[in-house]
Amino acid sequence: MSPIQNSPREPVGLARYAGLGTFARLPRLDEVSRADVAVLGVPFDSGVSYRPGARFGPNHIRESSRLLRPYNPQLGVAPFQTLQVADAGDVAAGPYDLPAALTAIERHARDLLDGGARLLTIGGDHTISLPLLRAVAAVRGPVAVAHFDAHLDTWEGSYGSAFNHATPFRRAVEEGLIDMEASIHVGVRGPLPADTDLTDDARLGFTVITATEIELDGVRAAAERLRARIDGRPVYVSVDIDVLDPAHAPGTGTPEAGGLTSRELLVLLRELASVDVVSGDIVEVAPAYDHAQITGIAAAHTAYEIVSTMAVAP
Amino acid sequence: MSPIQNSPREPVGLARYAGLGTFARLPRLDEVSRADVAVLGVPFDSGVSYRPGARFGPNHIRESSRLLRPYNPQLGVAPFQTLQVADAGDVAAGPYDLPAALTAIERHARDLLDGGARLLTIGGDHTISLPLLRAVAAVRGPVAVAHFDAHLDTWEGSYGSAFNHATPFRRAVEEGLIDMEASIHVGVRGPLPADTDLTDDARLGFTVITATEIELDGVRAAAERLRARIDGRPVYVSVDIDVLDPAHAPGTGTPEAGGLTSRELLVLLRELASVDVVSGDIVEVAPAYDHAQITGIAAAHTAYEIVSTMAVAP
Amino acid sequence: MSPIQNSPREPVGLARYAGLGTFARLPRLDEVSRADVAVLGVPFDSGVSYRPGARFGPNHIRESSRLLRPYNPQLGVAPFQTLQVADAGDVAAGPYDLPAALTAIERHARDLLDGGARLLTIGGDHTISLPLLRAVAAVRGPVAVAHFDAHLDTWEGSYGSAFNHATPFRRAVEEGLIDMEASIHVGVRGPLPADTDLTDDARLGFTVITATEIELDGVRAAAERLRARIDGRPVYVSVDIDVLDPAHAPGTGTPEAGGLTSRELLVLLRELASVDVVSGDIVEVAPAYDHAQITGIAAAHTAYEIVSTMAVAP
Amino acid sequence: MSPIQNSPREPVGLARYAGLGTFARLPRLDEVSRADVAVLGVPFDSGVSYRPGARFGPNHIRESSRLLRPYNPQLGVAPFQTLQVADAGDVAAGPYDLPAALTAIERHARDLLDGGARLLTIGGDHTISLPLLRAVAAVRGPVAVAHFDAHLDTWEGSYGSAFNHATPFRRAVEEGLIDMEASIHVGVRGPLPADTDLTDDARLGFTVITATEIELDGVRAAAERLRARIDGRPVYVSVDIDVLDPAHAPGTGTPEAGGLTSRELLVLLRELASVDVVSGDIVEVAPAYDHAQITGIAAAHTAYEIVSTMAVAP
Amino acid sequence: MSPIQNSPREPVGLARYAGLGTFARLPRLDEVSRADVAVLGVPFDSGVSYRPGARFGPNHIRESSRLLRPYNPQLGVAPFQTLQVADAGDVAAGPYDLPAALTAIERHARDLLDGGARLLTIGGDHTISLPLLRAVAAVRGPVAVAHFDAHLDTWEGSYGSAFNHATPFRRAVEEGLIDMEASIHVGVRGPLPADTDLTDDARLGFTVITATEIELDGVRAAAERLRARIDGRPVYVSVDIDVLDPAHAPGTGTPEAGGLTSRELLVLLRELASVDVVSGDIVEVAPAYDHAQITGIAAAHTAYEIVSTMAVAP
Amino acid sequence: MSPIQNSPREPVGLARYAGLGTFARLPRLDEVSRADVAVLGVPFDSGVSYRPGARFGPNHIRESSRLLRPYNPQLGVAPFQTLQVADAGDVAAGPYDLPAALTAIERHARDLLDGGARLLTIGGDHTISLPLLRAVAAVRGPVAVAHFDAHLDTWEGSYGSAFNHATPFRRAVEEGLIDMEASIHVGVRGPLPADTDLTDDARLGFTVITATEIELDGVRAAAERLRARIDGRPVYVSVDIDVLDPAHAPGTGTPEAGGLTSRELLVLLRELASVDVVSGDIVEVAPAYDHAQITGIAAAHTAYEIVSTMAVAP
Repeated sequence: MSPIQNSPREPVGLARYAGLGTFARLPRLDEVSRADVAVLGVPFDSGVSYRPGARFGPNHIRESSRLLRPYNPQLGVAPFQTLQVADAGDVAAGPYDLPAALTAIERHARDLLDGGARLLTIGGDHTISLPLLRAVAAVRGPVAVAHFDAHLDTWEGSYGSAFNHATPFRRAVEEGLIDMEASIHVGVRGPLPADTDLTDDARLGFTVITATEIELDGVRAAAERLRARIDGRPVYVSVDIDVLDPAHAPGTGTPEAGGLTSRELLVLLRELASVDVVSGDIVEVAPAYDHAQITGIAAAHTAYEIVSTMAVAP
Repeated sequence: MSPIQNSPREPVGLARYAGLGTFARLPRLDEVSRADVAVLGVPFDSGVSYRPGARFGPNHIRESSRLLRPYNPQLGVAPFQTLQVADAGDVAAGPYDLPAALTAIERHARDLLDGGARLLTIGGDHTISLPLLRAVAAVRGPVAVAHFDAHLDTWEGSYGSAFNHATPFRRAVEEGLIDMEASIHVGVRGPLPADTDLTDDARLGFTVITATEIELDGVRAAAERLRARIDGRPVYVSVDIDVLDPAHAPGTGTPEAGGLTSRELLVLLRELASVDVVSGDIVEVAPAYDHAQITGIAAAHTAYEIVSTMAVAP
Repeated sequence: MSPIQNSPREPVGLARYAGLGTFARLPRLDEVSRADVAVLGVPFDSGVSYRPGARFGPNHIRESSRLLRPYNPQLGVAPFQTLQVADAGDVAAGPYDLPAALTAIERHARDLLDGGARLLTIGGDHTISLPLLRAVAAVRGPVAVAHFDAHLDTWEGSYGSAFNHATPFRRAVEEGLIDMEASIHVGVRGPLPADTDLTDDARLGFTVITATEIELDGVRAAAERLRARIDGRPVYVSVDIDVLDPAHAPGTGTPEAGGLTSRELLVLLRELASVDVVSGDIVEVAPAYDHAQITGIAAAHTAYEIVSTMAVAP
Repeated sequence: MSPIQNSPREPVGLARYAGLGTFARLPRLDEVSRADVAVLGVPFDSGVSYRPGARFGPNHIRESSRLLRPYNPQLGVAPFQTLQVADAGDVAAGPYDLPAALTAIERHARDLLDGGARLLTIGGDHTISLPLLRAVAAVRGPVAVAHFDAHLDTWEGSYGSAFNHATPFRRAVEEGLIDMEASIHVGVRGPLPADTDLTDDARLGFTVITATEIELDGVRAAAERLRARIDGRPVYVSVDIDVLDPAHAPGTGTPEAGGLTSRELLVLLRELASVDVVSGDIVEVAPAYDHAQITGIAAAHTAYEIVSTMAVAP
Repeated sequence: MSPIQNSPREPVGLARYAGLGTFARLPRLDEVSRADVAVLGVPFDSGVSYRPGARFGPNHIRESSRLLRPYNPQLGVAPFQTLQVADAGDVAAGPYDLPAALTAIERHARDLLDGGARLLTIGGDHTISLPLLRAVAAVRGPVAVAHFDAHLDTWEGSYGSAFNHATPFRRAVEEGLIDMEASIHVGVRGPLPADTDLTDDARLGFTVITATEIELDGVRAAAERLRARIDGRPVYVSVDIDVLDPAHAPGTGTPEAGGLTSRELLVLLRELASVDVVSGDIVEVAPAYDHAQITGIAAAHTAYEIVSTMAVAP
Repeated sequence: MSPIQNSPREPVGLARYAGLGTFARLPRLDEVSRADVAVLGVPFDSGVSYRPGARFGPNHIRESSRLLRPYNPQLGVAPFQTLQVADAGDVAAGPYDLPAALTAIERHARDLLDGGARLLTIGGDHTISLPLLRAVAAVRGPVAVAHFDAHLDTWEGSYGSAFNHATPFRRAVEEGLIDMEASIHVGVRGPLPADTDLTDDARLGFTVITATEIELDGVRAAAERLRARIDGRPVYVSVDIDVLDPAHAPGTGTPEAGGLTSRELLVLLRELASVDVVSGDIVEVAPAYDHAQITGIAAAHTAYEIVSTMAVAP
């Protein structure tokens, strides 16, 4: 097995703001002989229903990740030294044909998974979680989903489309891609179309930790509920950045007041260090609405915690 | 009694970003036969002492409210189906004559109240709470005030004017408009002109929950203190958006560090679901200082929780 | 014939920043008995190839038009008094089905035209000019197009789609909707995919006034060339706001350096006062990239000049 | 006569971004024994009809003036060495009482004029030109006005107030403060309430150079018309920053497309070097709408050219 | 002893947004006969490793401090009446010679300390804490450091320089300037270069309260740990504004997600009211990345709490 | 000679907003066997005297260049097909040691030149032109300089440093790197420290075309003067983006009002198509002050015109 190449590809002495951008200034996939984790960009936002712009998300997160450093003191792990992590670039998914894009994303993801890598996908809107879960389930079978989001994303459809950023998890359940004994939404809040949203979601088999619960009972209690629900099963982590409050993540498409702080999110993600995180995504970063990269930095740290959990229990 | 018309006035299929803007895409007042709750804009900011711009607040809040949906899962109520809510447009209150504006606001508010509606006013600077309370008290008699703000707003006056955004509640007490057995300020913080601000305020009869208390004792304790103080009496809710931390509400005129999160505010507002919320206002949203509508969205959710409390106990 | 209702629908004394927003604070279509000109919003941007967000264009232009006043001193006409102009609201065109949206836009436009109105459409991305031209040609036959844009918009297609914001005028020529004896692009500049773009465009029959020509020969010479080309024929005016330099219109999707000033554009538009302007559109305003409404204000003034040309020669 | 103290008051070696801010890093008025020119801030914006915020204009212009250097190569003069220029700080004019503010501004201006200084006033909204002209006329008699603005500012009144930012020059004419043989508006453009605006203005005696004229005939021709109109008489210069296009001055309250470039304005101002510039003002800079200080820098350079004209012909 | 001059230097009636800017609108040092506390600006950022711009920090904090008022209700003290506080202006420290700047800063600080003042320094990047501690230690001997920061700032060096914004406390320990029995970092978080960062820091003698601890155990527990560690000894307070979450302080150079709220920071700072705060600094405010002054306001309130602690136990 | 590889390195179908960023989506230098033109980033800004941040310039210009297309219609050339252009990444030049950085930049540039490439450098502040000219002169001997800038950049020094962004061309003249028979500054404007700036500069041998000349005589006359001055000699092009007006380039460090439009700059650059452009740079892009990439896009187009001139006369 080839040694891990984690040194940035830039020449010695290059400052962190310098050099062509990859996630965390890691090597590109074509520069390494293998990857344990592939960071895959999906610049696609044709599934959004409100503010578009997440197509610019992948490179925004990359630029916002330049300050990430090798050692994670909270988890006591150096993920880029334990695992070969590499930037796989972006999926070629044009903006005008949503079904073709889903196919392209699934195929690209599948190729990387077949090559032995876990995925750390940076989106793109939440529509992309469906083809990503298809690829993961094809390789690993149904997996639990730890879904951090302001919204349930288990709608039936909208504006005449069954495939968009509000429906990925309903479609995934219908297709049998998810382990419904251990899947959960975290951070849900805000007005809903109807009370049936909640009952439908529960009937699908999801559990919910609301943002209000986190406010009232604290993040430690939420972490415990999360861990209990996952129950040691293999898990796919999907983080819609709008799980954060608009103060922490203005750069997103369907913001809702009353969200999580980035600190809460990072603490909760670290709970997953004890389980097998099979792959993960961070979606809905819309840079045109960001300021001073605060959304991008939150997304970069989110990605870093996910890859760290993979490194704790590789 | 005519049936409630809560469907958006736009044709079927119109996306949430489309169509002329009303609060929450509700019908205009002239499109319905009656209103239980009138959303009234007061584009007036001639009472501000620092950053102006709240005159653009009403339409900013309307634009920021397009994502609001019918069902409130935290309170288990669908406010727009329980109550006929309609957008009453804006008061005609010119910028150059403060006394004339106070009169115009009071008269417009009174007309709506006399028509049987409760008011959900979107400002505008905090000066407007005085004519609104005059109108409410004329119809309902003195009511308790649940006042969410970084500031006490019970100053004697400033720059030679007794009527401005720092004095509405002192004037209202003097005019006998407030039930002083049950009125309270929530979220107060920051430096004061003098310690007499506190003693004066207490002498008027107000109780205070400071932002520091919320930090140290938690929002659940604060909610209990709030409920105990209101004690089941009819209450007018007045939310100065600067009760939120500048991180959550940059778009305001006199920001103070160390404020509430939007999540804390929403939790506290839900405490009022058990009482008779006679009317309410959200003020001091200054869009020129907002970013990505985070202040506007917080204000829209604030308004939504207030109308939800009205719907729980109509 | 009913008298023209041009007074803003708001009560007397309402400031220009107050009241629910329509274009130029004009009456809504449902408030007037007929309209000579209908201002139609098309909040649709699924045809963009780079920065999305023009779906928020219509209401941004409306908000940016509040300062427009009745009398146009350059053309010596009071358009809202000569013509009944009204805001027709927005087309219902969902984001997920581009062909369905084209149909919806054409049908809505056709209904208004059939009702006797000329169209002043505020977009939306440039894809919408195709269904608008279909509707116009159905009523008026092929018309000349005065097309202000940094780009030719006569591409064959891109990302596998024949219908997007780079192809409307090629499709329109192919469908016989345009009078090719009198059609012209104004303001074209910037790198092209290939030199065949120019030869293809010329073969379709278009004439071009480049931005460089305007720099070197001045706007008066360009105005003369424009007038000569139109040659008194009925003309459809299509303004892509990116005809302006990014300094004047940052809020757009595919900006190119070296563009026109807003002053040059307004002067050129006034040249059309001598001909029959059958309808017009202003497209590609993407508010998320705008600042202080400078793009929105330029678009609002553009619309105002177009409606003024309609009023000079009604 | 005491020697001119033009060295910045800061210690040797202080960078241009360092030190407490005065206009152009000049000494404060209390640091010099006399002043030929007093830079006076008027943080007052209670006369605005649309976007407020010019109350923050004076310090924004000061901060934006830190890069100004001593020698003006276009006019061949070193204004701060020829004249003793000093920063006189701000007028105390509260926001709630417009008449009292007018009095305070006039008195403060008069005191400085009586002390022998010419005024270079940085506003503040355009309302302030009236009390400034009252003070100037009291000392110098009626003077010509060279007024650079998108608007005529000779309205009768609005929202019930005769004194606001749209009326200063009508009031000044009525009060006999202006030499109507030599007064002129430069840069006027945009829609008007009615054609009578133009005829009223002409009847008062003003001449107009429109922005369109400058576009079509060039700035050299405009400069000649300006010089001919002033005809060597003593002149008061009043620059509303909205004379610039919104691209050059987004940070203002009532922007109109189609304006001047900053380069054109500076060239035109230099025409005044041949005459006696008795005093001047720069108004309507609203920092909340500015970006990267581009409006502030344009205002600072405007002020610098005005003081340079004073230095050429002191 | 001369009476304290705390009234703002501006004439009576000047609004808080008016007048030349000093910290909290306090008198300048040259206007008072002595100072108990000198507010010293250090516009220097040549030690930054990522986003520069803190050279503009001092005046940004001054502008953001205009709303501060005399009485601190949380600590029950009126700091500007108990102590003579004055704005000492800025150190002259050019951008091109880091060693010379360190010398200049130390000398300027020493002069003020020798004059009997405590320092409240507003930076500037964190490099400046080293010369400040040198000056303090020269007068007071080694003092404890209460260091609020996302980072340890005890690196060995970087990019070949031993003196930059990541090394001040290592250098200070090496030079014997710090009382290592009572020094502590608060708010540390985020990825590190290596686990040796932590062990090196501990070996130097520092204690750490992480941001995660504050999340999980609350601010009251952290306050207790802080107080226990300081243990009544004289303390120098150094606040890197990036101790706050990017949501609360976007305007800084090396932001890390998961930080403190401004409310938490203010509560923690008040813990120092019981000890002898010998001097303090607030650093790393980079205004180009700030929005609506939220970073500046947080820094101004931070400074206000520090000076308040000095006033409680003068 | 190997065939030119100009196709973007990304897989087929990748949208222009997708893929890891290089200048104009060109191949990286390590992906091609040779380069006629190397695009070299110099992320260095330790030479700035006012607003820093140009260290982030190279990647900002790369991101802003994604819309550039192969064919230049104004010059009738397809530069990326005529020449092998490749992105050489960034120079490793740390922020703390200015002399070491100059050496590193010179060495890196020299290596590329020795390899047969011309340089198209994207900065970074203007200090970098000195080492770049050293490298060019070592290979080509003294060359003419066509210098587009608001400033002369021939100062003696400042803040005690002879090497900074205001001195590169004085140092270059002293070192004999420039052909003084054919060198010229274009776009100069704004206040100067003293009239000796102009006389010193003239004595060094430079000619000047001021921004005012361009205003008054037009760009065609300026182009002629430029061509006459260059007189067919080999020329190095150096573009300080502040040659543009702040409206066109807010994202820069020392902005001056009254500058060029991007259209004027592009026209002037095309004049160089007739001569041997040996290399060029674009400097002083400071992204923190940019908006909607307007400065970045202007810089990208500037670079594109320079490389086009190289392609016309390779």
